[in-house]
Amino acid sequence: MLQRITILGSTGSIGTQTLRVIDRFPDRFKVVGLSTKRNIKLLERQIEKYRPEAVAVFDNEKALELKKNIKSNSGQKTAVLTGEEGLTELAALHDAEMVIIALVGFSGLKPTLTAIKEGKEIALANKEALVVGGELIMGEARSRNIIIRPIDSEHSAIFQCINKADEGELSKIILTASGGPFRGWLKEKLVNVTPAQALKHPNWNMGSKISIDSATLMNKGFEVIEARWLFNLDYKKIDVVIHPESIIHSMVEFIDGSILAQMGIPDMLLPIQYALSYPERWGNDFPRLNWQEKQQIHFFPPDNDHFPCLNYAYQAGKTGGTLPAVMNAANEAAVEKFLKNELSFLHIPLLIEEIMNRHIVKFNPSLEELIAVDRWAREEADVTAQKL
Amino acid sequence: MLQRITILGSTGSIGTQTLRVIDRFPDRFKVVGLSTKRNIKLLERQIEKYRPEAVAVFDNEKALELKKNIKSNSGQKTAVLTGEEGLTELAALHDAEMVIIALVGFSGLKPTLTAIKEGKEIALANKEALVVGGELIMGEARSRNIIIRPIDSEHSAIFQCINKADEGELSKIILTASGGPFRGWLKEKLVNVTPAQALKHPNWNMGSKISIDSATLMNKGFEVIEARWLFNLDYKKIDVVIHPESIIHSMVEFIDGSILAQMGIPDMLLPIQYALSYPERWGNDFPRLNWQEKQQIHFFPPDNDHFPCLNYAYQAGKTGGTLPAVMNAANEAAVEKFLKNELSFLHIPLLIEEIMNRHIVKFNPSLEELIAVDRWAREEADVTAQKL
Repeated sequence: MLQRITILGSTGSIGTQTLRVIDRFPDRFKVVGLSTKRNIKLLERQIEKYRPEAVAVFDNEKALELKKNIKSNSGQKTAVLTGEEGLTELAALHDAEMVIIALVGFSGLKPTLTAIKEGKEIALANKEALVVGGELIMGEARSRNIIIRPIDSEHSAIFQCINKADEGELSKIILTASGGPFRGWLKEKLVNVTPAQALKHPNWNMGSKISIDSATLMNKGFEVIEARWLFNLDYKKIDVVIHPESIIHSMVEFIDGSILAQMGIPDMLLPIQYALSYPERWGNDFPRLNWQEKQQIHFFPPDNDHFPCLNYAYQAGKTGGTLPAVMNAANEAAVEKFLKNELSFLHIPLLIEEIMNRHIVKFNPSLEELIAVDRWAREEADVTAQKL
Repeated sequence: MLQRITILGSTGSIGTQTLRVIDRFPDRFKVVGLSTKRNIKLLERQIEKYRPEAVAVFDNEKALELKKNIKSNSGQKTAVLTGEEGLTELAALHDAEMVIIALVGFSGLKPTLTAIKEGKEIALANKEALVVGGELIMGEARSRNIIIRPIDSEHSAIFQCINKADEGELSKIILTASGGPFRGWLKEKLVNVTPAQALKHPNWNMGSKISIDSATLMNKGFEVIEARWLFNLDYKKIDVVIHPESIIHSMVEFIDGSILAQMGIPDMLLPIQYALSYPERWGNDFPRLNWQEKQQIHFFPPDNDHFPCLNYAYQAGKTGGTLPAVMNAANEAAVEKFLKNELSFLHIPLLIEEIMNRHIVKFNPSLEELIAVDRWAREEADVTAQKL
């Protein structure tokens, strides 16, 4: 039987790779919804190929343009939604059984909540949604017995290692981090880092936002908070270890001291497929680790002096309330500025720290309060960045 | 509720460590049976401490001696059994729910079969039983729905990684091997290896038989055959990789390419405890891997030229029938001779190969046929060793 799937963010890195996985299993899936921020050129090709019921284009002008193009293409019956409301409507699309959340940044929160409330199966690649609204998301998911399938390679690894073990049997999880392109660099060198350098991840080929977050280690900080929510763990049970080869994707230590690790080549196709196939596993022809070749892998502790963002995330997560939302918004603003050459690499953590310090935390925030705080932090970041 | 346990081979390396684990969980276990080959001094102390219903002493004279000692110790009501029949009787002890098979060599086969036929839970540390009689053992276990809990660290690792996955989801298993104390040595150096050198394993503290088997890589060959039976896998799905640090205890690759690995410090207490606690996990204070320390681990393919025993095991396993029993008996004889300085290190594989080549394989052997073949191979080994 075909499973009907919507992909939010189908033109991005995870979205396109998800479609590559779906292409390998044509008997298992039917794509019913797709979305893009503004890449209508690619979305149009996807519409032609998958003939979805509906698509959403976040950008209003691009949405109009797409509508025109589609009209001229007779026989095409795909509805075109637009804006935040359009994305939310698509997330709730009646015909979809599973929604892949491959959106980037805070914008993923509302559609994720919507899809959960509609009782969809969820495969989640958007980490910011859990960072900002983890409590809301997990509360809604738990009350509907929805198991959120993580697409992040680290959380997929932990998800696979935990399997069906009781929470009480977990001693801790150990998130592995490549350390990014600047591992081992000193301040003198970090000061001159360019966006082009930061975008070149040594192991993973990813979108630009997550590549910069990996270079600052903020990405690993996000993953700590994600893990706290996905696996219902106290922060003192979440460790991070640097493992430059990205072969071990993460580990779980059980109360008896036994550690399970999930391994594979650094490629998102596998965690994407597992999120789709769970709880089954399906055969494929993806490239594999070759144990007949000499290999060595390394582990060492993170360098918190040069890469303080990981600690900010622990601090924000432990404090809770609106602080993770503020940290995330400040980071989104900082990364945007860095990519536009308006902020230096070392000013990214400085800006985040400054905005976090200035924030008065509110606990148990509603979605509306999170949205308000997100806006506040971005505005503060705009003003503050000019003074750095 | 107390689980009633018999330990066959309670004075050996695995036996004493099993008692150490049991000591940590006094509310969970009651020791009802113990056995030794001839170490009655230690067995007497174990009797005093655990007050078992019965013990078995393989050596008849030592059994008599123990009986006398126990008699003088009034209030002691432990029955003393002796010989092969005594060991078999102990394996069937009515009061035991679980039997730990910590015997060394071919002698483990009959008691293992007996305990399975009596419907006991089985925790198996004796690899030779599965090497020689895997088909018999697994047939009896399967017909009684008994899950054999492996105590070998490698098979415990695989057991934990497979968890409840379907056989059809396994792509292959990857047994890790430290490579033993002579990894990387050339023939010129191997020629002069002494028993004392071979007994010093770099990572594991083990009994003498298994230490020599580790040095020749025959131990890894045995584990390949064990894995074939425990996990019902074709030999082409069983790989071996050298990993000198013995931190990853073994790995499983699933059909989607995902690999799960089980890790821990090289210490038998953990796999012993898991065999006892399965399917649960229990907290403990065993030493653990420390990820905050710099670590590096290596992998490379085995050196089949200098250590041919691994290939002999694949050959014996793939051929099946009585050939594994012959290989095992020739190996037991060779190791004994090597430990007595009657055979050089490099003559161990030569002797095994010679006896295997001389054997005419019989398929679907009965227990009696296996016993006969075992005797034949040992006699052949005695004669042949003199000519080497």
